[in-house]
Amino acid sequence: MEIELLMIGNEILIGKTQDTNSNWVAKRITKFGHIVKRITTIGDKLETISNTIRDILKRKPNIVITSGGIGPTFDDMTLQGIANGLNRKLELNKHAYNSIKKAYEHAHKKGLLQLEGMTKEREKMAYLPQNSISLPNTVGTAPGVKIEEDKTTIFILPGVPTEMKSMFRNVITPILKKEKGKFIEKGFLFSGIGESQIAAYTSELEKKYPQLWIKTHPRIGLSVEVEVSITAFNVKNGEELIDKTLDEIREIVIKLNGKIKERE
Amino acid sequence: MEIELLMIGNEILIGKTQDTNSNWVAKRITKFGHIVKRITTIGDKLETISNTIRDILKRKPNIVITSGGIGPTFDDMTLQGIANGLNRKLELNKHAYNSIKKAYEHAHKKGLLQLEGMTKEREKMAYLPQNSISLPNTVGTAPGVKIEEDKTTIFILPGVPTEMKSMFRNVITPILKKEKGKFIEKGFLFSGIGESQIAAYTSELEKKYPQLWIKTHPRIGLSVEVEVSITAFNVKNGEELIDKTLDEIREIVIKLNGKIKERE
Repeated sequence: MEIELLMIGNEILIGKTQDTNSNWVAKRITKFGHIVKRITTIGDKLETISNTIRDILKRKPNIVITSGGIGPTFDDMTLQGIANGLNRKLELNKHAYNSIKKAYEHAHKKGLLQLEGMTKEREKMAYLPQNSISLPNTVGTAPGVKIEEDKTTIFILPGVPTEMKSMFRNVITPILKKEKGKFIEKGFLFSGIGESQIAAYTSELEKKYPQLWIKTHPRIGLSVEVEVSITAFNVKNGEELIDKTLDEIREIVIKLNGKIKERE
Repeated sequence: MEIELLMIGNEILIGKTQDTNSNWVAKRITKFGHIVKRITTIGDKLETISNTIRDILKRKPNIVITSGGIGPTFDDMTLQGIANGLNRKLELNKHAYNSIKKAYEHAHKKGLLQLEGMTKEREKMAYLPQNSISLPNTVGTAPGVKIEEDKTTIFILPGVPTEMKSMFRNVITPILKKEKGKFIEKGFLFSGIGESQIAAYTSELEKKYPQLWIKTHPRIGLSVEVEVSITAFNVKNGEELIDKTLDEIREIVIKLNGKIKERE
Protein backbone atom coordinates (compact mmCIF):
# COMPACT_ATOMS: atom_id res chain seq x y z
CA MET A 1 0.00 0.00 0.00
CA GLU A 2 1.08 3.57 -0.67
CA ILE A 3 0.70 5.89 2.29
CA GLU A 4 1.05 9.67 2.75
CA LEU A 5 1.61 11.37 6.09
CA LEU A 6 0.28 14.86 6.89
CA MET A 7 1.68 16.50 10.02
CA ILE A 8 -0.29 19.54 11.18
CA GLY A 9 1.07 22.06 13.68
CA ASN A 10 2.60 25.55 13.78
CA GLU A 11 4.94 24.37 16.54
CA ILE A 12 6.74 22.14 14.02
CA LEU A 13 7.04 24.90 11.40
CA ILE A 14 8.53 27.37 13.89
CA GLY A 15 11.05 24.73 14.97
CA LYS A 16 9.80 24.60 18.55
CA THR A 17 8.85 20.93 18.27
CA GLN A 18 10.97 18.33 16.52
CA ASP A 19 8.48 16.10 14.71
CA THR A 20 9.28 12.54 15.75
CA ASN A 21 5.83 11.14 14.95
CA SER A 22 6.44 10.84 11.21
CA ASN A 23 9.67 8.89 11.76
CA TRP A 24 7.98 6.54 14.23
CA VAL A 25 5.10 5.92 11.84
CA ALA A 26 7.37 5.58 8.77
CA LYS A 27 9.47 2.89 10.44
CA ARG A 28 6.40 0.79 11.19
CA ILE A 29 4.81 1.24 7.78
CA THR A 30 8.10 0.17 6.17
CA LYS A 31 8.51 -2.78 8.52
CA PHE A 32 5.11 -4.13 7.48
CA GLY A 33 6.12 -3.89 3.80
CA HIS A 34 4.26 -0.74 2.77
CA ILE A 35 5.54 2.49 1.31
CA VAL A 36 5.53 6.05 2.68
CA LYS A 37 5.37 8.14 -0.48
CA ARG A 38 5.46 11.62 1.05
CA ILE A 39 5.43 13.48 4.35
CA THR A 40 3.89 16.95 4.34
CA THR A 41 4.07 19.33 7.29
CA ILE A 42 1.77 22.36 7.40
CA GLY A 43 0.49 24.88 9.94
CA ASP A 44 -2.84 25.15 11.76
CA LYS A 45 -4.65 27.07 9.03
CA LEU A 46 -8.02 26.05 7.60
CA GLU A 47 -7.36 26.86 3.97
CA THR A 48 -3.94 25.21 3.98
CA ILE A 49 -5.34 22.04 5.53
CA SER A 50 -8.21 21.77 3.07
CA ASN A 51 -6.06 22.53 0.01
CA THR A 52 -3.41 20.06 1.13
CA ILE A 53 -5.79 17.15 1.75
CA ARG A 54 -7.24 17.76 -1.73
CA ASP A 55 -3.76 17.68 -3.28
CA ILE A 56 -2.94 14.46 -1.43
CA LEU A 57 -6.16 12.75 -2.59
CA LYS A 58 -5.33 13.65 -6.21
CA ARG A 59 -2.27 11.39 -5.88
CA LYS A 60 -4.61 8.52 -4.85
CA PRO A 61 -2.70 6.97 -1.93
CA ASN A 62 -4.32 3.94 -0.29
CA ILE A 63 -4.04 5.56 3.14
CA VAL A 64 -3.48 9.09 4.48
CA ILE A 65 -2.48 9.49 8.13
CA THR A 66 -2.71 12.95 9.66
CA SER A 67 -1.34 13.88 13.08
CA GLY A 68 -2.05 16.99 15.15
CA GLY A 69 -4.66 19.69 15.56
CA ILE A 70 -7.63 17.74 16.99
CA GLY A 71 -7.59 19.11 20.56
CA PRO A 72 -10.04 21.49 22.24
CA THR A 73 -8.32 24.82 21.58
CA PHE A 74 -9.14 27.39 18.92
CA ASP A 75 -5.93 26.67 17.01
CA ASP A 76 -6.85 22.99 16.56
CA MET A 77 -8.36 23.16 13.08
CA THR A 78 -7.73 19.77 11.55
CA LEU A 79 -11.31 18.45 11.65
CA GLN A 80 -12.80 21.59 10.11
CA GLY A 81 -9.96 21.80 7.57
CA ILE A 82 -10.34 18.17 6.44
CA ALA A 83 -14.14 18.52 6.33
CA ASN A 84 -13.83 21.62 4.10
CA GLY A 85 -11.34 19.81 1.87
CA LEU A 86 -13.75 16.90 1.39
CA ASN A 87 -16.83 19.15 1.02
CA ARG A 88 -18.42 17.59 4.07
CA LYS A 89 -20.03 19.29 7.03
CA LEU A 90 -19.05 18.71 10.62
CA GLU A 91 -21.71 16.91 12.63
CA LEU A 92 -21.99 15.81 16.23
CA ASN A 93 -20.78 12.22 16.55
CA LYS A 94 -22.42 10.55 19.55
CA HIS A 95 -19.66 7.99 20.08
CA ALA A 96 -17.08 10.76 20.09
CA TYR A 97 -19.20 12.92 22.41
CA ASN A 98 -19.66 10.14 24.96
CA SER A 99 -15.99 9.16 24.96
CA ILE A 100 -14.91 12.77 25.49
CA LYS A 101 -17.43 13.21 28.30
CA LYS A 102 -16.19 10.01 29.96
CA ALA A 103 -12.56 11.02 29.66
CA TYR A 104 -13.19 14.38 31.37
CA GLU A 105 -15.30 12.80 34.11
CA HIS A 106 -12.49 10.34 34.69
CA ALA A 107 -9.87 13.13 34.86
CA HIS A 108 -12.11 15.05 37.27
CA LYS A 109 -12.58 12.02 39.55
CA LYS A 110 -8.83 11.47 39.64
CA GLY A 111 -8.42 15.09 40.70
CA LEU A 112 -6.58 16.04 37.51
CA LEU A 113 -9.10 18.68 36.48
CA GLN A 114 -11.45 20.98 38.39
CA LEU A 115 -14.06 21.26 35.69
CA GLU A 116 -16.05 18.08 35.15
CA GLY A 117 -18.69 18.73 32.52
CA MET A 118 -18.61 19.50 28.83
CA THR A 119 -17.68 22.98 27.59
CA LYS A 120 -18.08 24.42 24.11
CA GLU A 121 -14.40 23.69 23.49
CA ARG A 122 -14.63 20.10 24.68
CA GLU A 123 -17.74 19.53 22.58
CA LYS A 124 -15.88 20.80 19.53
CA MET A 125 -13.79 17.63 19.48
CA ALA A 126 -16.98 15.57 18.95
CA TYR A 127 -17.92 17.36 15.72
CA LEU A 128 -16.48 15.11 13.00
CA PRO A 129 -16.75 15.30 9.20
CA GLN A 130 -20.00 13.63 8.03
CA ASN A 131 -19.82 9.84 7.65
CA SER A 132 -16.76 9.49 9.85
CA ILE A 133 -15.98 6.75 12.31
CA SER A 134 -14.77 7.91 15.72
CA LEU A 135 -11.61 6.14 16.96
CA PRO A 136 -11.20 5.69 20.72
CA ASN A 137 -8.39 7.59 22.45
CA THR A 138 -7.37 5.35 25.33
CA VAL A 139 -4.64 7.73 26.52
CA GLY A 140 -6.10 11.24 26.12
CA THR A 141 -9.39 12.96 25.37
CA ALA A 142 -9.55 13.81 21.66
CA PRO A 143 -10.95 10.92 19.60
CA GLY A 144 -9.34 10.03 16.29
CA VAL A 145 -11.29 9.81 13.04
CA LYS A 146 -11.49 7.37 10.15
CA ILE A 147 -12.93 8.56 6.83
CA GLU A 148 -13.36 6.73 3.52
CA GLU A 149 -13.03 9.03 0.49
CA ASP A 150 -13.03 7.36 -2.94
CA LYS A 151 -10.42 4.61 -2.67
CA THR A 152 -8.44 6.34 0.07
CA THR A 153 -8.82 5.79 3.81
CA ILE A 154 -7.98 8.86 5.91
CA PHE A 155 -6.95 8.41 9.55
CA ILE A 156 -6.90 11.57 11.66
CA LEU A 157 -4.74 11.01 14.73
CA PRO A 158 -3.71 13.25 17.66
CA GLY A 159 -0.36 15.07 17.66
CA VAL A 160 0.61 14.13 21.23
CA PRO A 161 3.05 11.23 20.64
CA THR A 162 1.70 8.87 23.32
CA GLU A 163 -1.87 9.30 22.04
CA MET A 164 -0.84 9.03 18.39
CA LYS A 165 1.17 5.85 18.98
CA SER A 166 -1.53 4.15 20.99
CA MET A 167 -4.16 4.86 18.31
CA PHE A 168 -1.78 3.78 15.53
CA ARG A 169 -1.13 0.47 17.29
CA ASN A 170 -4.81 -0.19 17.96
CA VAL A 171 -6.25 0.83 14.62
CA ILE A 172 -3.64 1.02 11.84
CA THR A 173 -1.16 -1.74 12.70
CA PRO A 174 -3.79 -4.51 12.18
CA ILE A 175 -4.56 -3.11 8.70
CA LEU A 176 -0.88 -2.94 7.75
CA LYS A 177 -0.24 -6.46 9.01
CA LYS A 178 -2.96 -7.95 6.83
CA GLU A 179 -0.86 -7.47 3.72
CA LYS A 180 2.13 -9.32 5.15
CA GLY A 181 4.92 -7.76 3.04
CA LYS A 182 8.16 -7.54 5.00
CA PHE A 183 10.99 -5.02 4.76
CA ILE A 184 14.40 -6.72 4.83
CA GLU A 185 17.68 -4.85 4.95
CA LYS A 186 21.27 -6.12 5.19
CA GLY A 187 24.65 -4.58 4.60
CA PHE A 188 28.34 -4.25 5.39
CA LEU A 189 31.03 -1.59 5.75
CA PHE A 190 34.13 -1.06 3.66
CA SER A 191 37.06 1.33 3.74
CA GLY A 192 40.02 2.31 1.58
CA ILE A 193 37.93 3.30 -1.42
CA GLY A 194 35.29 6.00 -1.72
CA GLU A 195 31.54 5.86 -2.17
CA SER A 196 31.85 7.27 -5.65
CA GLN A 197 34.19 4.51 -6.80
CA ILE A 198 31.61 1.80 -6.49
CA ALA A 199 28.68 3.97 -7.60
CA ALA A 200 28.79 2.79 -11.22
CA TYR A 201 28.76 -0.85 -10.11
CA THR A 202 25.88 -0.54 -7.66
CA SER A 203 24.00 1.39 -10.32
CA GLU A 204 24.35 -1.59 -12.66
CA LEU A 205 23.20 -3.95 -9.92
CA GLU A 206 20.13 -1.86 -9.27
CA LYS A 207 19.24 -2.06 -12.95
CA LYS A 208 19.78 -5.84 -12.82
CA TYR A 209 17.55 -6.24 -9.70
CA PRO A 210 14.96 -3.44 -9.89
CA GLN A 211 13.13 -4.75 -6.80
CA LEU A 212 16.14 -3.88 -4.62
CA TRP A 213 17.23 -0.63 -3.05
CA ILE A 214 21.00 -0.31 -2.91
CA LYS A 215 22.36 2.56 -0.89
CA THR A 216 25.81 3.66 0.22
CA HIS A 217 26.43 6.08 3.11
CA PRO A 218 29.69 7.64 4.28
CA ARG A 219 30.27 6.68 7.92
CA ILE A 220 32.53 7.91 10.72
CA GLY A 221 36.08 6.58 10.54
CA LEU A 222 36.39 6.97 6.75
CA SER A 223 34.34 3.91 6.03
CA VAL A 224 31.34 3.53 3.77
CA GLU A 225 28.23 1.51 4.56
CA VAL A 226 26.45 -0.50 1.88
CA GLU A 227 22.80 -1.32 2.45
CA VAL A 228 20.62 -3.52 0.32
CA SER A 229 16.92 -3.66 1.06
CA ILE A 230 13.70 -5.07 -0.35
CA THR A 231 10.03 -5.24 0.54
CA ALA A 232 9.38 -8.93 0.13
CA PHE A 233 6.17 -10.88 0.33
CA ASN A 234 8.30 -14.05 0.38
CA VAL A 235 10.91 -13.48 3.07
CA LYS A 236 13.18 -16.41 2.11
CA ASN A 237 13.43 -15.33 -1.53
CA GLY A 238 14.01 -11.75 -0.45
CA GLU A 239 16.87 -12.66 1.86
CA GLU A 240 18.50 -14.90 -0.74
CA LEU A 241 18.44 -12.13 -3.34
CA ILE A 242 19.93 -9.65 -0.86
CA ASP A 243 22.71 -12.07 0.19
CA LYS A 244 23.59 -12.77 -3.44
CA THR A 245 23.70 -9.06 -4.25
CA LEU A 246 25.84 -8.26 -1.20
CA ASP A 247 28.31 -10.96 -2.30
CA GLU A 248 28.55 -9.34 -5.74
CA ILE A 249 29.26 -5.96 -4.10
CA ARG A 250 31.89 -7.49 -1.80
CA GLU A 251 33.68 -8.87 -4.88
CA ILE A 252 33.69 -5.43 -6.48
CA VAL A 253 35.07 -3.78 -3.32
CA ILE A 254 37.88 -6.37 -3.14
CA LYS A 255 38.64 -5.94 -6.86
CA LEU A 256 39.06 -2.17 -6.24
CA ASN A 257 41.44 -2.90 -3.30
CA GLY A 258 38.98 -1.83 -0.60
CA LYS A 259 38.77 -3.51 2.78
CA ILE A 260 35.57 -5.17 3.96
CA LYS A 261 34.28 -4.96 7.53
CA GLU A 262 31.07 -6.72 8.48
CA ARG A 263 28.51 -4.79 10.53
CA GLU A 264 28.20 -5.57 14.20
CA MET B 1 9.75 36.25 3.88
CA GLU B 2 7.83 33.02 3.28
CA ILE B 3 9.98 29.94 2.96
CA GLU B 4 9.29 26.32 1.99
CA LEU B 5 11.56 23.39 2.84
CA LEU B 6 11.92 20.33 0.60
CA MET B 7 13.68 17.35 2.14
CA ILE B 8 14.73 14.69 -0.38
CA GLY B 9 15.72 11.15 0.62
CA ASN B 10 14.31 7.62 0.69
CA GLU B 11 16.07 7.05 4.02
CA ILE B 12 13.68 9.51 5.69
CA LEU B 13 10.57 7.96 4.13
CA ILE B 14 11.51 4.44 5.24
CA GLY B 15 12.11 5.76 8.76
CA LYS B 16 15.79 4.84 8.79
CA THR B 17 16.87 8.45 9.25
CA GLN B 18 15.12 10.90 11.57
CA ASP B 19 15.12 14.19 9.67
CA THR B 20 16.61 16.77 12.02
CA ASN B 21 17.65 19.19 9.27
CA SER B 22 14.22 20.72 8.80
CA ASN B 23 13.86 21.43 12.53
CA TRP B 24 17.33 23.02 12.67
CA VAL B 25 16.56 25.21 9.67
CA ALA B 26 13.02 26.10 10.86
CA LYS B 27 14.35 27.34 14.22
CA ARG B 28 16.77 29.70 12.54
CA ILE B 29 14.31 30.98 9.95
CA THR B 30 11.81 31.72 12.75
CA LYS B 31 14.46 33.35 14.93
CA PHE B 32 15.26 35.80 12.16
CA GLY B 33 11.56 36.71 11.84
CA HIS B 34 10.63 34.77 8.73
CA ILE B 35 8.00 32.10 8.18
CA VAL B 36 8.32 28.44 7.26
CA LYS B 37 5.09 27.78 5.38
CA ARG B 38 5.50 24.10 4.64
CA ILE B 39 7.94 21.20 4.89
CA THR B 40 7.67 18.50 2.23
CA THR B 41 9.60 15.23 2.38
CA ILE B 42 9.86 13.08 -0.74
CA GLY B 43 11.97 10.20 -2.06
CA ASP B 44 14.85 10.11 -4.53
CA LYS B 45 12.71 9.87 -7.66
CA LEU B 46 13.08 12.17 -10.67
CA GLU B 47 9.41 12.65 -11.46
CA THR B 48 8.44 13.26 -7.85
CA ILE B 49 11.19 15.86 -7.42
CA SER B 50 10.27 17.76 -10.58
CA ASN B 51 6.51 17.68 -9.88
CA THR B 52 7.04 18.79 -6.30
CA ILE B 53 9.30 21.75 -7.11
CA ARG B 54 6.68 22.88 -9.67
CA ASP B 55 3.92 22.67 -7.03
CA ILE B 56 6.02 24.63 -4.56
CA LEU B 57 6.74 27.38 -7.08
CA LYS B 58 3.01 27.76 -7.78
CA ARG B 59 2.62 28.88 -4.15
CA LYS B 60 5.20 31.65 -4.82
CA PRO B 61 7.37 31.43 -1.70
CA ASN B 62 10.26 33.91 -1.48
CA ILE B 63 12.73 31.12 -0.83
CA VAL B 64 12.80 27.33 -1.26
CA ILE B 65 15.49 25.35 0.56
CA THR B 66 16.05 21.75 -0.49
CA SER B 67 18.25 19.29 1.39
CA GLY B 68 19.57 15.93 0.22
CA GLY B 69 20.30 14.02 -2.96
CA ILE B 70 23.25 15.96 -4.41
CA GLY B 71 26.03 13.41 -3.83
CA PRO B 72 27.89 11.25 -6.37
CA THR B 73 25.78 8.10 -6.30
CA PHE B 74 23.12 7.00 -8.77
CA ASP B 75 20.33 7.55 -6.27
CA ASP B 76 21.23 11.24 -5.82
CA MET B 77 18.75 12.78 -8.25
CA THR B 78 18.00 16.22 -6.88
CA LEU B 79 19.90 18.27 -9.49
CA GLN B 80 18.35 16.43 -12.44
CA GLY B 81 14.91 16.48 -10.77
CA ILE B 82 15.00 20.23 -10.09
CA ALA B 83 16.37 20.92 -13.59
CA ASN B 84 13.50 18.93 -15.14
CA GLY B 85 10.98 20.74 -12.94
CA LEU B 86 12.28 24.13 -14.11
CA ASN B 87 12.62 23.04 -17.76
CA ARG B 88 16.34 23.68 -17.65
CA LYS B 89 19.16 21.47 -18.82
CA LEU B 90 22.07 20.38 -16.68
CA GLU B 91 25.37 21.90 -17.75
CA LEU B 92 28.93 21.58 -16.51
CA ASN B 93 29.64 24.36 -14.00
CA LYS B 94 33.37 25.13 -13.91
CA HIS B 95 33.34 26.52 -10.37
CA ALA B 96 31.61 23.40 -9.15
CA TYR B 97 33.95 21.14 -11.13
CA ASN B 98 37.08 22.77 -9.73
CA SER B 99 35.83 22.72 -6.15
CA ILE B 100 34.93 19.02 -6.39
CA LYS B 101 38.32 18.20 -7.94
CA LYS B 102 40.10 20.10 -5.17
CA ALA B 103 38.07 18.41 -2.43
CA TYR B 104 38.98 14.94 -3.74
CA GLU B 105 42.64 15.85 -4.18
CA HIS B 106 42.64 17.08 -0.59
CA ALA B 107 41.00 13.88 0.69
CA HIS B 108 43.52 11.82 -1.27
CA LYS B 109 46.50 13.74 0.12
CA LYS B 110 45.20 13.26 3.65
CA GLY B 111 45.02 9.53 2.96
CA LEU B 112 41.21 9.46 3.25
CA LEU B 113 40.66 8.12 -0.27
CA GLN B 114 42.69 5.96 -2.63
CA LEU B 115 41.33 7.40 -5.82
CA GLU B 116 42.51 10.92 -6.52
CA GLY B 117 41.09 12.02 -9.87
CA MET B 118 37.62 12.71 -11.18
CA THR B 119 35.29 9.83 -12.04
CA LYS B 120 32.05 9.98 -13.97
CA GLU B 121 30.17 9.93 -10.64
CA ARG B 122 32.22 12.74 -9.13
CA GLU B 123 31.82 14.82 -12.29
CA LYS B 124 28.04 14.35 -12.04
CA MET B 125 27.98 16.67 -9.01
CA ALA B 126 29.33 19.51 -11.20
CA TYR B 127 26.42 19.37 -13.66
CA LEU B 128 24.03 22.04 -12.38
CA PRO B 129 20.76 23.37 -13.82
CA GLN B 130 21.48 26.12 -16.39
CA ASN B 131 22.03 29.60 -14.92
CA SER B 132 22.81 28.31 -11.45
CA ILE B 133 25.35 29.63 -9.00
CA SER B 134 27.54 27.00 -7.36
CA LEU B 135 27.80 27.30 -3.55
CA PRO B 136 31.05 26.19 -1.91
CA ASN B 137 30.93 23.13 0.37
CA THR B 138 33.62 23.80 2.97
CA VAL B 139 32.95 20.55 4.83
CA GLY B 140 32.28 17.95 2.11
CA THR B 141 32.54 17.51 -1.65
CA ALA B 142 29.13 18.19 -3.22
CA PRO B 143 28.63 21.90 -3.99
CA GLY B 144 25.30 23.53 -3.23
CA VAL B 145 23.31 25.44 -5.82
CA LYS B 146 21.47 28.75 -5.96
CA ILE B 147 18.83 29.30 -8.65
CA GLU B 148 16.57 32.28 -9.33
CA GLU B 149 13.18 31.30 -10.80
CA ASP B 150 10.60 34.08 -11.21
CA LYS B 151 10.49 35.76 -7.80
CA THR B 152 11.65 32.69 -5.90
CA THR B 153 15.21 31.86 -4.90
CA ILE B 154 15.94 28.14 -4.69
CA PHE B 155 18.83 26.91 -2.53
CA ILE B 156 19.86 23.29 -3.05
CA LEU B 157 21.82 22.08 -0.01
CA PRO B 158 23.38 18.74 0.91
CA GLY B 159 21.57 16.26 3.18
CA VAL B 160 24.54 15.51 5.45
CA PRO B 161 23.76 17.69 8.49
CA THR B 162 27.27 19.13 9.01
CA GLU B 163 27.48 20.13 5.33
CA MET B 164 23.95 21.49 5.24
CA LYS B 165 24.44 23.58 8.39
CA SER B 166 27.73 25.03 7.25
CA MET B 167 26.27 26.06 3.87
CA PHE B 168 23.14 27.47 5.54
CA ARG B 169 25.27 29.60 7.88
CA ASN B 170 27.51 30.86 5.10
CA VAL B 171 24.91 31.58 2.44
CA ILE B 172 21.37 31.78 3.83
CA THR B 173 21.80 33.31 7.31
CA PRO B 174 23.12 36.63 5.89
CA ILE B 175 20.04 36.89 3.64
CA LEU B 176 17.64 36.17 6.52
CA LYS B 177 19.39 38.68 8.78
CA LYS B 178 18.95 41.52 6.31
CA GLU B 179 15.23 41.71 7.06
CA LYS B 180 15.71 42.07 10.82
CA GLY B 181 12.32 40.75 12.01
CA LYS B 182 12.68 38.97 15.35
CA PHE B 183 10.69 36.09 16.82
CA ILE B 184 9.81 36.68 20.48
CA GLU B 185 8.13 34.10 22.69
CA LYS B 186 7.24 34.19 26.40
CA GLY B 187 4.98 32.15 28.62
CA PHE B 188 4.13 30.60 31.95
CA LEU B 189 2.71 27.39 33.41
CA PHE B 190 -0.49 26.89 35.33
CA SER B 191 -2.21 23.96 37.04
CA GLY B 192 -5.53 23.12 38.66
CA ILE B 193 -7.61 23.94 35.59
CA GLY B 194 -7.53 22.35 32.13
CA GLU B 195 -6.39 23.62 28.77
CA SER B 196 -9.95 23.61 27.50
CA GLN B 197 -11.18 25.89 30.29
CA ILE B 198 -9.18 28.87 29.14
CA ALA B 199 -9.56 28.13 25.41
CA ALA B 200 -12.49 30.50 24.94
CA TYR B 201 -10.55 33.34 26.61
CA THR B 202 -7.35 32.88 24.65
CA SER B 203 -9.45 32.65 21.50
CA GLU B 204 -10.87 36.09 22.28
CA LEU B 205 -7.39 37.47 22.96
CA GLU B 206 -6.13 36.17 19.64
CA LYS B 207 -8.97 37.96 17.89
CA LYS B 208 -8.09 41.13 19.82
CA TYR B 209 -4.37 40.90 18.92
CA PRO B 210 -4.22 39.17 15.53
CA GLN B 211 -0.46 39.64 15.29
CA LEU B 212 0.07 37.27 18.23
CA TRP B 213 0.19 33.50 18.40
CA ILE B 214 -1.27 32.18 21.63
CA LYS B 215 -0.77 28.50 22.32
CA THR B 216 -1.44 26.19 25.23
CA HIS B 217 0.22 22.79 25.68
CA PRO B 218 -0.42 20.09 28.28
CA ARG B 219 2.80 19.43 30.21
CA ILE B 220 4.06 16.71 32.53
CA GLY B 221 2.80 16.98 36.10
CA LEU B 222 -0.75 18.00 35.12
CA SER B 223 0.23 21.54 34.30
CA VAL B 224 -0.47 23.51 31.15
CA GLU B 225 1.98 25.82 29.42
CA VAL B 226 0.84 29.07 27.86
CA GLU B 227 2.99 30.56 25.12
CA VAL B 228 2.54 33.89 23.44
CA SER B 229 4.72 34.71 20.45
CA ILE B 230 5.14 37.34 17.75
CA THR B 231 7.42 38.11 14.84
CA ALA B 232 8.27 41.72 15.57
CA PHE B 233 10.23 44.22 13.56
CA ASN B 234 10.21 46.48 16.64
CA VAL B 235 11.40 44.27 19.51
CA LYS B 236 10.40 46.64 22.34
CA ASN B 237 6.82 47.00 21.10
CA GLY B 238 6.61 43.25 20.54
CA GLU B 239 7.75 42.44 24.07
CA GLU B 240 5.37 44.98 25.61
CA LEU B 241 2.41 43.51 23.77
CA ILE B 242 3.36 39.98 24.83
CA ASP B 243 3.80 41.00 28.49
CA LYS B 244 0.44 42.76 28.51
CA THR B 245 -1.28 39.73 26.97
CA LEU B 246 0.36 37.31 29.40
CA ASP B 247 -0.90 39.46 32.29
CA GLU B 248 -4.43 39.26 30.92
CA ILE B 249 -4.15 35.45 30.71
CA ARG B 250 -2.76 35.25 34.27
CA GLU B 251 -5.83 37.15 35.50
CA ILE B 252 -8.14 34.70 33.74
CA VAL B 253 -6.32 31.69 35.24
CA ILE B 254 -6.60 33.18 38.74
CA LYS B 255 -10.28 34.00 38.19
CA LEU B 256 -10.88 30.33 37.31
CA ASN B 257 -9.06 29.22 40.49
CA GLY B 258 -5.98 27.92 38.67
CA LYS B 259 -2.46 28.17 40.10
CA ILE B 260 0.28 30.04 38.26
CA LYS B 261 3.87 28.85 38.05
CA GLU B 262 6.42 30.91 36.18
CA ARG B 263 8.76 29.11 33.78
CA GLU B 264 12.32 28.51 34.85
